[in-house]
Amino acid sequence: TSKTVAVLPGDGIGPEVLDAALPVIDALGLPLTLEHGDIGWEFWRTEGTPVPQRTWDLIGRSDAVLLGATTSKPGREALADLAPRLREQAPQYVSPIIQLRQRLDLFANLRPVESYLGGTPYRFCVVRENTEGLYAGLDWDQVPEEMWPLVADHPNARISGREATTASVRMLTRHGLDRILRYAFEHARAHGHPRVTLADKPNVLRRSSAYARERLEEIAADYPEIEYEILNVDAVALWMARRPERFGVIVAENMFGDILSDLGGGVMGGLGLAPSANIGEHGNYFEPVHGSAPALAGTGRANPLAAFLTVGLLLEHLGFGEAAGQVRDAVSHVTRRRDRVTYDLGGTATTTECAAAVLDACGAV
Amino acid sequence: TSKTVAVLPGDGIGPEVLDAALPVIDALGLPLTLEHGDIGWEFWRTEGTPVPQRTWDLIGRSDAVLLGATTSKPGREALADLAPRLREQAPQYVSPIIQLRQRLDLFANLRPVESYLGGTPYRFCVVRENTEGLYAGLDWDQVPEEMWPLVADHPNARISGREATTASVRMLTRHGLDRILRYAFEHARAHGHPRVTLADKPNVLRRSSAYARERLEEIAADYPEIEYEILNVDAVALWMARRPERFGVIVAENMFGDILSDLGGGVMGGLGLAPSANIGEHGNYFEPVHGSAPALAGTGRANPLAAFLTVGLLLEHLGFGEAAGQVRDAVSHVTRRRDRVTYDLGGTATTTECAAAVLDACGAV
Ligand SMILES: CC(C)[C@H](C(=O)O)[C@@H](O)C(=O)O
Ligand SMILES: CC(C)[C@H](C(=O)O)[C@@H](O)C(=O)O
Repeated sequence: TSKTVAVLPGDGIGPEVLDAALPVIDALGLPLTLEHGDIGWEFWRTEGTPVPQRTWDLIGRSDAVLLGATTSKPGREALADLAPRLREQAPQYVSPIIQLRQRLDLFANLRPVESYLGGTPYRFCVVRENTEGLYAGLDWDQVPEEMWPLVADHPNARISGREATTASVRMLTRHGLDRILRYAFEHARAHGHPRVTLADKPNVLRRSSAYARERLEEIAADYPEIEYEILNVDAVALWMARRPERFGVIVAENMFGDILSDLGGGVMGGLGLAPSANIGEHGNYFEPVHGSAPALAGTGRANPLAAFLTVGLLLEHLGFGEAAGQVRDAVSHVTRRRDRVTYDLGGTATTTECAAAVLDACGAV
Repeated sequence: TSKTVAVLPGDGIGPEVLDAALPVIDALGLPLTLEHGDIGWEFWRTEGTPVPQRTWDLIGRSDAVLLGATTSKPGREALADLAPRLREQAPQYVSPIIQLRQRLDLFANLRPVESYLGGTPYRFCVVRENTEGLYAGLDWDQVPEEMWPLVADHPNARISGREATTASVRMLTRHGLDRILRYAFEHARAHGHPRVTLADKPNVLRRSSAYARERLEEIAADYPEIEYEILNVDAVALWMARRPERFGVIVAENMFGDILSDLGGGVMGGLGLAPSANIGEHGNYFEPVHGSAPALAGTGRANPLAAFLTVGLLLEHLGFGEAAGQVRDAVSHVTRRRDRVTYDLGGTATTTECAAAVLDACGAV
């Protein structure tokens, strides 16, 4: 029985990189049915929501969702194009990926980081919590009345007064911690990583980090063959830049995970090689980490490799592990020659040329 | 009139790196009076506080404070050495540098990042806010009653209940924002940096980041010759790893600044080259970014270069700009040969040999 993949190209370079990478599914002879759907800024402009109901329906009946790229916050150019009435409403635009994560409860954001460009080999994965932390939606430009007594003693708050004191809450819950920690250990077990590193800030956020440690210790007990450690998030950033080979699975709350996984992209040589998976109990979406890059759209220079690696992650998730390996190997092969990669990796190839090289390598390797 | 510098060696390798670097003050013939004082874990053990009153007095009558390194959180070994009664009290130990920052209101944490090890040259500075943000001390392993109604609607909180929901507040105030932003622009002006970058998270923490933008725009108006931009903190991390030459002055709230400045250390080739200054209206301290590294203490292998560069920052602050430049040049000179740098930079020199090479170069360059 063939599985269904919802393909949501989205904004900017999203459609271009998916067009380039999708043929790999046929090339590998995989029994998948692709159904295209609408998402992104365009649909906010024309229909008032970046994720129309028909798209939610499509997602609902699919086994996996493949996303190209979407506008997270409309830029100056996007706003300039709008009718004045719409421009006023633009601040209410909510990034489609934030909507997907929240509505589908996609709690695990997986970001593999691998040495595709040579040097000391490394392969680690950032497992980012995706539903709470500083992304819980608890953010105010004026501390709410209820909270003010808790804050008012701080000298800066006293000097500034409530109307000039902002607050954002990093919320960690037992539910959120337990499922992401368990996911991290399962991932380590499945991929043969010997160690899980929790990136947190126990020397400063003492109480909340102590609670995270408690949960970590309890869950780790179910995985006796896997080591674990807690490192300060700042130290993880430093070591990721210096010795990425040190890491196996890094698990982190939402904001720390956001920073560390983008940094992983930097370490790899740019977001052009960074895929991601967002996974929950009842849904998922797979997406290159890069954005819609409006300035690059239509130039034929967008790097399709992150899209290929994203298809690889999706294939792995659907049980086609061998095919996923072939995609990764093909990407490795292609990055060895500068005339096959795009400008962002120091190459000269166009999107199409780079994609053709990967498809070629998929047959050859 | 000679200025007074309080020298607080502290724990672990702190005393070793200061002993190695301090002779540069005499070598450069600077009219400074050094007074040594007590700080660190040792004094918590013996006197119940890591910063005895006599040290606060010394700090009070000094023009600048030079710190070696202190224990931020006692490690396993430190705890094992304690009498059981003390071991129980150890969780109450508060890092001396956190105490200094709070009590002296040292709001600006300056971390210059420079390409001492070759490659594409870069020189930028992270200006980290040091008194609020997620470091405001608002951290609970159980959301306080007053806050619960604000949080309880989040699905994870609803599932977990109040007793299993933690909260930490990122607090930004007008007072805190204004002074750090102004400091960043002043620093850019004084050092000829054409641009200030605010690292924040406007696409997620919309309200508090919008307030930060408001303050930025108002203060930037006083510095018309300096450009400014707001970037997502994750993008700053990525670009710092990829193109550090892109940046001039990066200003960030406390936690983002903590992560980015350690990452700056990683980009430079390790904390062995990372100095810092902590500055307020009525006080300061200067310190290498590295910790006390208890495992390294006594081995003669600690890298003294961060301590030299820290003395350089201190000299600049006291008005000895030319001498500061000489120290930086001497460090640049020394890093060019592997037999003059320590193991962490791939070299073979001991602390003493490396320090001797810097002192030599201070005469020579
Ligand atoms: C677009 C933005 C809201 C998003 C995030 O911060 O999570 C992005 O940076 C990511 O990492 O997926
Ligand atoms: C020791 C620790 C409390 C401190 C911090 O997080 O501020 C350190 O990491 C630093 O960056 O100075």
